[in-house]
Amino acid sequence: MENNLIFVKLGGSLITEKSAPYTINYDAIRRIVKEIKEAIDAKQDLNLLIGHGGGSFPHPIAQSFRTIEGFIQTNSVRGFALCQNAASTLNRIVVDLLLDYGVDAVSIQPTACCIAENGEISDFFIKPIEASINNDITPIVFGDCVFDTIRGCTVVSTEQILTYLSKYIRPSRVLIFELVGGVYTADPQKDKKAKLIPEITVENFSTVESYLGGSYSVDVTGGMLKKVKELLKIAKRGIECEILSGQSGNIKKALKGERGLGTIIKPITLFN
Amino acid sequence: MENNLIFVKLGGSLITEKSAPYTINYDAIRRIVKEIKEAIDAKQDLNLLIGHGGGSFPHPIAQSFRTIEGFIQTNSVRGFALCQNAASTLNRIVVDLLLDYGVDAVSIQPTACCIAENGEISDFFIKPIEASINNDITPIVFGDCVFDTIRGCTVVSTEQILTYLSKYIRPSRVLIFELVGGVYTADPQKDKKAKLIPEITVENFSTVESYLGGSYSVDVTGGMLKKVKELLKIAKRGIECEILSGQSGNIKKALKGERGLGTIIKPITLFN
Repeated sequence: MENNLIFVKLGGSLITEKSAPYTINYDAIRRIVKEIKEAIDAKQDLNLLIGHGGGSFPHPIAQSFRTIEGFIQTNSVRGFALCQNAASTLNRIVVDLLLDYGVDAVSIQPTACCIAENGEISDFFIKPIEASINNDITPIVFGDCVFDTIRGCTVVSTEQILTYLSKYIRPSRVLIFELVGGVYTADPQKDKKAKLIPEITVENFSTVESYLGGSYSVDVTGGMLKKVKELLKIAKRGIECEILSGQSGNIKKALKGERGLGTIIKPITLFN
Repeated sequence: MENNLIFVKLGGSLITEKSAPYTINYDAIRRIVKEIKEAIDAKQDLNLLIGHGGGSFPHPIAQSFRTIEGFIQTNSVRGFALCQNAASTLNRIVVDLLLDYGVDAVSIQPTACCIAENGEISDFFIKPIEASINNDITPIVFGDCVFDTIRGCTVVSTEQILTYLSKYIRPSRVLIFELVGGVYTADPQKDKKAKLIPEITVENFSTVESYLGGSYSVDVTGGMLKKVKELLKIAKRGIECEILSGQSGNIKKALKGERGLGTIIKPITLFN
């Protein structure tokens, strides 16, 4: 039996203008928030945990200061502070809009509750997120820079956060909304012959991997291959993931239960 | 021997216009940030942990939804979300200004890292704050609404946070900068005969308590008496606290080591 909790990621390139630093895509974000609100209103027992990427807010800073690598140079501390500021600035806009549209959303800042070890989340204070969900409040996490026990600091992606949380707070599904509507045989923004891969399974993963090798949609937290590998960890807990387009009604449809709008990463259990 | 860590609180009434909702006192906050930066530059080994009050941002919401009392009515969840949003909105402005003036500040959101039990902090994920201080980054906490194991939610003051943290991260001093420059025999804003109490000790506390009873400077997290009681808990750990005015150069002076600008709450040890 399914529970009513869905983990949702809103890609940074979906809600910001990736080519222009510190620029929100207000048209997209307003439509998305409206779809989320409509899905919540249509299904009263739906619980969401939403994460969003950083897009053109923290990414250029993280890239310039190489924040993911740690405190590696004299200006790394400054970079960390600026990167967190940028990530939180975007998060404020997202949460503010969700509240404006009637979603009882509360920000949960990863820097404050999460520690990494060599780039992987090793410690997460999850009580506020649990309390939030138990009280019908939608927690909003985000790709953020966090302290790291080995590197000093690093950057963790929304996918890493969702993967970690899925160990302790089991969602029924994980939906990754991006500008690109799924996993393709090549970068669909560059190659017109690129075809959507409807399903990723244990069996076809090595083929998929060969398609994704390289620079397909690279940002500071890794490209599509890293995203898929992260989601496979969730799938290995028996939880279905889907990467799909955040455009034109897809969010509402998917939250209402529709499947197969993008690429499904099939849940992997000991028995299949 | 003193360590180089000072806990600083910037009162909400100092950095916002308390009479007008969602209004920053930009003149005050810019001057304060400049003083903090000058103090850091003058004393290279100085480490700060800064907390700020909510002033006219979360307080009117917290009051109207009675957020400190918990999830007591149907709109409490909405109130919690709005209150957190307001607290974080003010925090963004404070951290943004600190960064602009060259302080490597990083926001640490209490909702994300702190849980209360019946109004008192019972659990706090302090690793990010420790890592921050160890890396010469100034963590910025703030009075915030948090989840509560008994009430569902509550509001914790900056003083409560500083008290809790002083158990684990021992500062040399705690400086509470307010609009009112210390503890007086009566509310100095209402009574011209009010006199500053230069020192609070175990011996004179009951007299001080009789002065402070009642409505002196009440906000949602309690008035001056609650503040002093909270600071006495820090003083009982052998740490000196001072409540002083945040006006006109005081912050710079106090951070440089000057004492007695306001009311000192004397450290209490087993031997005095």
